[in-house]
Amino acid sequence: MATLKDIEVAAAINILTAFAFFVAFAILRLQPINDRVYFPKWYLKGLRSSPLNSGAFVGRFVNLDFRSYIRFLNWMPDAMQMPEPELIDHAGLDSTVYLRIYLVGLKIFVPITFLAFAIMVPVNWTNVTLEHSNLTYSDIDKLSISNIPIGSHRFWTHLVMAYVFTFWTCYVLKKEYEIVASMRLHFLASEHRRPDQFTVMVRNVPPDPDESVDELVEHFFLVNHPDHYLTYQVVYNANRLSNLVKEKEKLQNWLDYYQLKYSRNQSMRPSSKTGFLGLCGERVDAIDFYTSKIENLSEEIASERENIISSPKSVMPAAFVSFKTRWGAAVCAQTQQSRNPTIWLTEWAPEPRDVYWDNLAIPYVSLTIRKLIVAVAFFFLTFFFMIPIAFVQSLANIEGIEKAVPFLKPIIEIKFIKSFIQGFLPGIALKIFLIFLPAILMLMSKFEGFISISALERISATRYYIFQFINVFLGSIITGTAFQQLDNFIHQSATDIPKTIGASIPMKATFFITYIMVDGWAGVAGEILRLKPLIIYHLKNFLLVKTEKDREEAMDPGTLGFNTGEPQIQLYFLLGLVYAVVTPILLPFIIVFFGLAYVVYRHQIINVYNQEYESAAAFWPDVHGRIIVALVVSQLLLMGLLSTKGAAQSTPLLIVLPVLTIWFHIFCKGRYEPAFVRYPLQEAMMKDTLERAREPNLNMKGFLQNSYMHPVFKEGDDSESDVASGDGDQEPDLVPTKRQSRRNTPLPSKHSGSVSSLPEAVQEHAQLL
Amino acid sequence: MATLKDIEVAAAINILTAFAFFVAFAILRLQPINDRVYFPKWYLKGLRSSPLNSGAFVGRFVNLDFRSYIRFLNWMPDAMQMPEPELIDHAGLDSTVYLRIYLVGLKIFVPITFLAFAIMVPVNWTNVTLEHSNLTYSDIDKLSISNIPIGSHRFWTHLVMAYVFTFWTCYVLKKEYEIVASMRLHFLASEHRRPDQFTVMVRNVPPDPDESVDELVEHFFLVNHPDHYLTYQVVYNANRLSNLVKEKEKLQNWLDYYQLKYSRNQSMRPSSKTGFLGLCGERVDAIDFYTSKIENLSEEIASERENIISSPKSVMPAAFVSFKTRWGAAVCAQTQQSRNPTIWLTEWAPEPRDVYWDNLAIPYVSLTIRKLIVAVAFFFLTFFFMIPIAFVQSLANIEGIEKAVPFLKPIIEIKFIKSFIQGFLPGIALKIFLIFLPAILMLMSKFEGFISISALERISATRYYIFQFINVFLGSIITGTAFQQLDNFIHQSATDIPKTIGASIPMKATFFITYIMVDGWAGVAGEILRLKPLIIYHLKNFLLVKTEKDREEAMDPGTLGFNTGEPQIQLYFLLGLVYAVVTPILLPFIIVFFGLAYVVYRHQIINVYNQEYESAAAFWPDVHGRIIVALVVSQLLLMGLLSTKGAAQSTPLLIVLPVLTIWFHIFCKGRYEPAFVRYPLQEAMMKDTLERAREPNLNMKGFLQNSYMHPVFKEGDDSESDVASGDGDQEPDLVPTKRQSRRNTPLPSKHSGSVSSLPEAVQEHAQLL
Repeated sequence: MATLKDIEVAAAINILTAFAFFVAFAILRLQPINDRVYFPKWYLKGLRSSPLNSGAFVGRFVNLDFRSYIRFLNWMPDAMQMPEPELIDHAGLDSTVYLRIYLVGLKIFVPITFLAFAIMVPVNWTNVTLEHSNLTYSDIDKLSISNIPIGSHRFWTHLVMAYVFTFWTCYVLKKEYEIVASMRLHFLASEHRRPDQFTVMVRNVPPDPDESVDELVEHFFLVNHPDHYLTYQVVYNANRLSNLVKEKEKLQNWLDYYQLKYSRNQSMRPSSKTGFLGLCGERVDAIDFYTSKIENLSEEIASERENIISSPKSVMPAAFVSFKTRWGAAVCAQTQQSRNPTIWLTEWAPEPRDVYWDNLAIPYVSLTIRKLIVAVAFFFLTFFFMIPIAFVQSLANIEGIEKAVPFLKPIIEIKFIKSFIQGFLPGIALKIFLIFLPAILMLMSKFEGFISISALERISATRYYIFQFINVFLGSIITGTAFQQLDNFIHQSATDIPKTIGASIPMKATFFITYIMVDGWAGVAGEILRLKPLIIYHLKNFLLVKTEKDREEAMDPGTLGFNTGEPQIQLYFLLGLVYAVVTPILLPFIIVFFGLAYVVYRHQIINVYNQEYESAAAFWPDVHGRIIVALVVSQLLLMGLLSTKGAAQSTPLLIVLPVLTIWFHIFCKGRYEPAFVRYPLQEAMMKDTLERAREPNLNMKGFLQNSYMHPVFKEGDDSESDVASGDGDQEPDLVPTKRQSRRNTPLPSKHSGSVSSLPEAVQEHAQLL
Repeated sequence: MATLKDIEVAAAINILTAFAFFVAFAILRLQPINDRVYFPKWYLKGLRSSPLNSGAFVGRFVNLDFRSYIRFLNWMPDAMQMPEPELIDHAGLDSTVYLRIYLVGLKIFVPITFLAFAIMVPVNWTNVTLEHSNLTYSDIDKLSISNIPIGSHRFWTHLVMAYVFTFWTCYVLKKEYEIVASMRLHFLASEHRRPDQFTVMVRNVPPDPDESVDELVEHFFLVNHPDHYLTYQVVYNANRLSNLVKEKEKLQNWLDYYQLKYSRNQSMRPSSKTGFLGLCGERVDAIDFYTSKIENLSEEIASERENIISSPKSVMPAAFVSFKTRWGAAVCAQTQQSRNPTIWLTEWAPEPRDVYWDNLAIPYVSLTIRKLIVAVAFFFLTFFFMIPIAFVQSLANIEGIEKAVPFLKPIIEIKFIKSFIQGFLPGIALKIFLIFLPAILMLMSKFEGFISISALERISATRYYIFQFINVFLGSIITGTAFQQLDNFIHQSATDIPKTIGASIPMKATFFITYIMVDGWAGVAGEILRLKPLIIYHLKNFLLVKTEKDREEAMDPGTLGFNTGEPQIQLYFLLGLVYAVVTPILLPFIIVFFGLAYVVYRHQIINVYNQEYESAAAFWPDVHGRIIVALVVSQLLLMGLLSTKGAAQSTPLLIVLPVLTIWFHIFCKGRYEPAFVRYPLQEAMMKDTLERAREPNLNMKGFLQNSYMHPVFKEGDDSESDVASGDGDQEPDLVPTKRQSRRNTPLPSKHSGSVSSLPEAVQEHAQLL
C-alpha cells in the first residue's frame, strides 16, 4: 500500500511532466512555423493568415523575440478572457456547454472538499483503530473511513455527510440544467436564421408504384400541411460518387508530391511503378501518369454525378421537407403523420453539417434488428473483450511467430530481440484494442442507424462510459476480467454486491489518486501540446504542400471528441462522488483535474478545435443522467461499505438517498429534458411573427433551396471547378460549411506548379485584425 | 400432494357449482321481476321497457311459460351471435377489445395445449424416475417435468418446446396488436363526430396578474394557433357543489322512503328523529322535515352554482380548448406550447364522460411529489401489508375484546360464540383488506393525479397485477409473506432466485389447478348470477321505488371493472405460460376458463354492463406488455428449474429467449404503440376534408359549446328541473352521457306520489324491437 510519501513522489513526477509539457507548448506555439498547428481555428475562421509570407527568412520559422518566451504561461489568462456569449459565437454552443461540464465539476467538488476536510478528516484522523491493529497502513488510510472502529457512532458523520453531498450535488445539477436549457432555447431562438429551423427530415417514405419519391413527398405534404409546406429536397444515394471523389483526392496528393519533387529537382522527371503500392509493374513518368488518371477519374465523377441526379433509382426514400414558418416545421417534426407509425417518420432535421448521410434510408424493421444486434454485440464487447485478446496473445508468442514465418527464425532467436518481443507482444494486443475502442464503438453506432453525427457521438459516449465503468472503475476495484466479475455478481446476492465492492473501495484510493495524476494531470497537459498533429503537419508540409490551400488542408485542427472526452470526465465525477465520503484526500486531486482541464480545453476550443456540427447542447441530458448514475452508485457503495463496518442500522437511512436521487432525476427529466427534444410552438410563433414584420418579402424558398445537399456534391463542385469551371456558382452561399475560410484563401490553378503568394486583399484583411 | 383422483373430485364439485349457478341464472333471468337486474343495458339504451306494466298480475313477476325453461342455456349462443361491428356500436370499443383478451388466451393456449399433449406428455410419462425414487408422487407428477431423471437428454424436448411456445405466443400477440391498433384507428376515424376529436385539454395555465384564466387561454391560443383555434371552456372547481348535490340526493331518498311508507299506510304520517342517524333528537313529521330540508338545500345549490359561475376564484387553471379542425387539435395535443415544459401542458381531451374532474388543477411539482409518495406507498402496501393485518389480528382476540367492551364479556364467554369468534376473527382482517384492495389502489391512483377515469383504471390495474404477481403467484409458490420473500431475494444471488422459484413450480401445479377451478370456473359462473345487484335491486325496489325513474336508478348495471378484471385474466396467462412446459396438464383448465369467461362476459357486456367511458381500447399496450412479462417470467423460471435438474448446459440457449422476447416487445412498442398515444395528421386531415365537403356550413362552435361541462352542472339541471323547470333545455343534446335513456323514460313529477305508467309511444317503440 502506498504511503503519503509515495503519493508525494508520484505527484512531483506528474507535476513536473505537466510543467514540461506546458513549457514545450509555450516554446512551440510561439514559432511561426507551428502557427497552423496551434491556432488552426483562427485560420478556419479566416481571421488569421500564414505568417510564413512576411518578414525575414529565419523569422518566418523561428520566433526570435525573446521577450515573448518570458511570459510562457500567459495563454492561461488569455483562454479565460473570452466571455461566454462571445465564445458561443466563436466556437458554438456545443463547445461552450461542454466547458460547463468542467465547471460543474468545480462547483460540485470545491464546497464538498472544504466540508470534507473541515469535518470528516478530523473525525477519521482522531481514531486509533489502524494503530492498534496489526495491519500495515499508511497515512492516507488514517485519513479515510478505514480508521474508524467497527460499530462506532462516528459513522453518523459519514451518513449525514452523504446526505449533505447528495443535496449539494443535486442542487448544482438542477441549477446547471436550468441554465443550459435556457442557453439552448436562447440559442435556438437567436436572431440568426438557419435552414434547420424550417426543415424536417422525413424518413421511410413508403414505396409507391405510380409516383416517384419526390412526387410522393410533395403530394403528401401539400395535402397534410397545406398552409405551411414550402419545398423539399430529396436525398441521393451518393456513396459511389463519394468513393470516387476520395479516390481522386488520393491521386491528387500523389500528383502534388511528384510535382513538388520535380519542381525542387528539375533535372529529372520523377517516375513510379503502376503496380501495387508502386512496388512492382511498369515504370512510367509519374506526373503524366497521375495527370491522366485524374482526368479519367474526373470524367467518371462528372458522369456519375449526372447519373445520380437523373436516375430515379439513386433517390433514397427520405427527404428534407421545408416549411414556410418555424411553426409549421415545429408542428410537423413533433407529430405523427401516417396511421402506420413506421412510415413517414418526421423529426427535426439536424444541422446540414451534422447529417450522417449514409444512414438516411434504413427501414424500420431493419433498424430494430440492428438495435438488437448492436446491444448483444456491445454486451459481448464489454464483458468478453479479453477473450480474443488473450487468444491473440497466446498466438503471438515466439514459437507461433517462428512457425508462421520460419525464415525470420534466425533474427528472432537473437537474445535482445527475443526478450523485446516477449516483453512487448502480450501488451500490444490490449493496447491496440483500447486505442481502437472509440472507433469500434462509433462503428457500432453507425451500424445502428443514427442519422446525425451528434447522435452518433452521444450514443458512443454512453457506451464508452459503460465500458469504462465496468472495465476501469469496477475492474480496478475488484481484480479480474469483466466476465469474471459478471459471473461473480450473478452468483452473489443483491446485498453482497455493494458490500464486496464497497469494502474494497478505501483500499484502492491510492491507486485512483495515481490514475488521476497520470491520466488527468499529465494527460490533459499533453493534450495542449498536440504532438501527433504537430508531427503530421510538418510531414505533410514537407511532402505535399504547394499552395496555401494545401497547407490549409494539411492542418488537422481535430474536434472536441465528445464520444471520448465526456466519458473520461464522467469517470472523475464517479471517483469524486464515491470517494467524497470514504477517502476525502482524493478530492483535491480531482479539483486540480477539473481546474486544469477547464483552462486547457477552453484554450483548445478557442484556438484549435474545429467545430464539425452544432447540436445546441443536445448532449446535456446525457451528462446530467450520468452524474446522477455516479451519485446513486456512490450511495449504494457507501451502503455496502457501512454494512461491513458494523453500521448496518444506517442502511434504511441510506436507502432513502437513492430513492430521492432517482426521483430528482425523474423530476428534472420532466422539467428540463423537453427543452432538448422538442421545440415549443410559442417560441416558433414569436420568431415567425417578428421575422414577418421585419422582412415581409423574404424569399424563403431561395434561402432553403440547396441547404441540404449531400456534401459530395459540394466537394464535387469544389474540385471540379478547375476542370469544368463555372460550376462553383451553384453552391449556396448561406450554408455554413467547414470551408468558410475559402472566402479568404485563393484557389490558384493546380497545374501552375508554383507556390502562389497570397493576394494583397487578403493580406490587408489579415492586417486589419 | 393431490392425486389425479383429488383433482377429479375438485373438478366435479366446481363443475357442479358452476352448473348450479347457470341453472339458477337461467331461472332467475326469465322472471320479469328480475328483468332490470339481468338486462339493464337494454334499459339504459332505451331499447327495452319494463315488463311489469303489461300482462296478468302474476305474469308480471313470474315467468309461467314453461317452454322457456327448457332451453336454459340458450343465452350462450345468443351471446355469441352479435357480430363484432354491432357489438362495438352497442357496447363500445373498450368492451369489445376487452373480450378479445379472452380470445387471445384461447388463441395462444389451444395450439400450445395440443402440442404439449402430443409431444411433452408422452416424453414425461415414459420415465420411471418417480417410481424408482422413494418420494410420494401422484399421477399428475408423472405427467410433469418432475418425472424426468436429472441430467437426461429429454430436457431438449422442453427446451425446443419453450422456443416453439415463445414464438407462437409472440406471433399471436403481434397479430392481435395489429388488429386492435387498426380497430382503434378505424374507430377514432369513424364517421361519428365527437367533441373530443376537436378538443385539447390544457393544464397548468400559469397565473397572470393582469388577466383571468379564460382571457389568458383565449389570448394564448389565438396567438399561437391563429388559423385553427375555435373556442374554449374553462373548468370550474365544483367540488362543494358536487357534495351539496350528493347530500340532496340522499335526503331525497329518505323523503321517497317516507312518502312510500305513507302512501301504503295512509292512517299514520311517518315521523323521524332529527339527531344522529335518526336515533336521537326531537321527533318530527318526516315528510315535512325532509321536504323543507330539501328545499333549503336546493336554494343553497342554486346560489352555489351562480357563485361558481360568477366568481373568478372558482375557475381552475385548466381549460378545454377546441379547434376548428381535427388537424388543429391533433397538432396542439402533440406539441409543446411554451418554453417551460411544465406550463401550458396540452394533451388529448378525454371523452367528456371519461374526465376525472377533481384532478384537473394539480401543478407540476405537486404531481411529481405525489408520484414519489404513491410509489413509496405502493411498495410498502405490496410488501408490508401483512404487518397492520397481523397487528389487527393480534388485537382482535377474545381477551382484547373483553377488555375493550367489558359488558360483552358474559356473551363472549358462551362457548359456541367464543369458538366462532376465535375461528373467524383472524381471517376477517385479511379478507376485508383484500376486498378493499382495488378501492385502495384506485384511491392511490386518484391521489397521483391522473385526469381521466380510463387512465385511473389502467394504472390501478397495473398495480393490482403487481400485487397479485407478488402476493398470489410468488406467495403461493414460496410460502411466507411478501416481505420475507423480498428479504430472501435480496440475500440470494441473481441465479439462485429463479432456481428457488423454478424448483418449487412443479410441486404447486395441483394447487393452481384447484385455484383455477374455484376462481376461474365457479367464480366466472357466479359473475353471471349477479347475486349482490339482485338483492340490492329488490331491497331498493321494496323501500324506495315509486316511479319508473326511481326503478331505473335502483338498478345497478355495474361496469366491466378493468382495474380488477384484467389483472385476474393476466394471472391465468402467467400460470398458463409458466406451466406450459413444466406441467402441461394444467393447460386444459386454463382453456376452459378462457372459453367460459369469454361467453359469460360477452353476455354480460351485451346485456348488463353499462359503459362509463370510451377510451378506444387505450389499454391494449398494457395488456400486451403484461403478457410479455408473463412470457419472460416463464422463461426465467424454466431456466432456474432446468439448472436444478442437471441441465445447466441449456442455460445459454434459454437466455436467448428473454432477450428475443424483450426485443420483440420493443419492436411492437415502436410499431404499434403510437396508434394508442398519438393521432396521425393524415387521418385527421382526411376526415376534415371529407367533413368540409359534406357539411360546409356546419356550426362547429355550437356543437362544441358546452360539451365539457362539469357533470354536477348537468346533474344540477336534472334534479333541478322540477324545482326550476325549463333549465333542462340548456343541456347540449350531442354529448353522450350515462343518461341517454332519459330520451325514452318519462320524467314524472316526484311530488305526484303515484307510480306513473309508461307513455304509449315508448311502449310501441319497445314492441318494434
